Amino acid sequence: MKKDDGSISMNVVRRLPKYHRFLRELKASSVVKISSKELSEITGFTASQIRQDLNTFGGFGKQGYGYDVNKLYKQISKILGLNVRHKSIIVGAGHLGQAIANYSGFREYFLDMKGIFDIDHDVIGRKVNDMTVMDENYIKAFIEENSITVAIICTPRSVAADLAEKLIDYGIKGIWNFAPVNLEERDGVSIENVSLAESLYVLSFLMNKNE
Amino acid sequence: MKKDDGSISMNVVRRLPKYHRFLRELKASSVVKISSKELSEITGFTASQIRQDLNTFGGFGKQGYGYDVNKLYKQISKILGLNVRHKSIIVGAGHLGQAIANYSGFREYFLDMKGIFDIDHDVIGRKVNDMTVMDENYIKAFIEENSITVAIICTPRSVAADLAEKLIDYGIKGIWNFAPVNLEERDGVSIENVSLAESLYVLSFLMNKNE
Repeated sequence: MKKDDGSISMNVVRRLPKYHRFLRELKASSVVKISSKELSEITGFTASQIRQDLNTFGGFGKQGYGYDVNKLYKQISKILGLNVRHKSIIVGAGHLGQAIANYSGFREYFLDMKGIFDIDHDVIGRKVNDMTVMDENYIKAFIEENSITVAIICTPRSVAADLAEKLIDYGIKGIWNFAPVNLEERDGVSIENVSLAESLYVLSFLMNKNE
Repeated sequence: MKKDDGSISMNVVRRLPKYHRFLRELKASSVVKISSKELSEITGFTASQIRQDLNTFGGFGKQGYGYDVNKLYKQISKILGLNVRHKSIIVGAGHLGQAIANYSGFREYFLDMKGIFDIDHDVIGRKVNDMTVMDENYIKAFIEENSITVAIICTPRSVAADLAEKLIDYGIKGIWNFAPVNLEERDGVSIENVSLAESLYVLSFLMNKNE
């Protein structure tokens, strides 16, 4: 649903990546058009939900024709900002930071991984994928010199909020936060909190319901 | 919104962990009652959304009084099934599997970590937190002997779907899937897919919007 200020509600935004993925798969299978009913079967969303979602950003459905897969895919990519690449760093080179550094999938998206940092001298200097773990003391200089815009926080909870403040001061424009603390958007800096606990609660709900 | 079959929509379900967290914090601060307006200020959801959400499961708001924090917290905990503990295993002892095994936070929730498995003989036998990585060949016997109900999949994408099939055959009732592939719920087995790519797309959207 479009909100009063013309922005798209976060509920719709959180469905967009799913549309994007399914449309990419349809494109790869050379499907050129699709009805909301067919999209409903693939996505599991209701056809009316889909029509409402896609209308939000001036959807492209034609009565009796359906959606043009390629056009819709391009439009959603653009709304998601996937045409812009961002230089990024990982802060915290523990298991989670290393898992992210090693996951090549993210590089296919809009992130260019430029560096990984830690405060632990036993970890600094180690190779992680094609990067060497750097001392967090150099983070400010590195962000400025390399025009880094995205930081991925993989630190313990206790230091995440203070770290985020610093990173924003140093010029970071987007934070992907894996520390189990809810960081809030401010000063035009985008924050996406990955709450694994919330995801786990949803699994608990589903299991409870299925019992 | 309650759906026709009486179930709670997944949109509401995904907000429940947030209510749960904020209510826990309110309880910890000895707050005993709260209005939907105050809850709105804390959560960022609109007051009408909150009233609608909480009504879904027979909310407890009283005109001119608000919600009883303790009652509401207990009710949401129960809906989320947090009163039931599940024995769980991690499959895949790479960086991500190790990150999860080492994260003590999950143990505070409803999961008891009982084992971690891999197929790589260089990894089998290694200590991860208080567990020793076991050979995946023993996974069936381990699940049966230890009444394991939850599996956390931390394998590469290519093997995740086949692995999930096997785990379900072995009696697993809930899968928390970190492999970048969408596993679908079936036969009363609950699946929660953690899509880091989707989360990253949301960050991309937010940055694009803020530019």
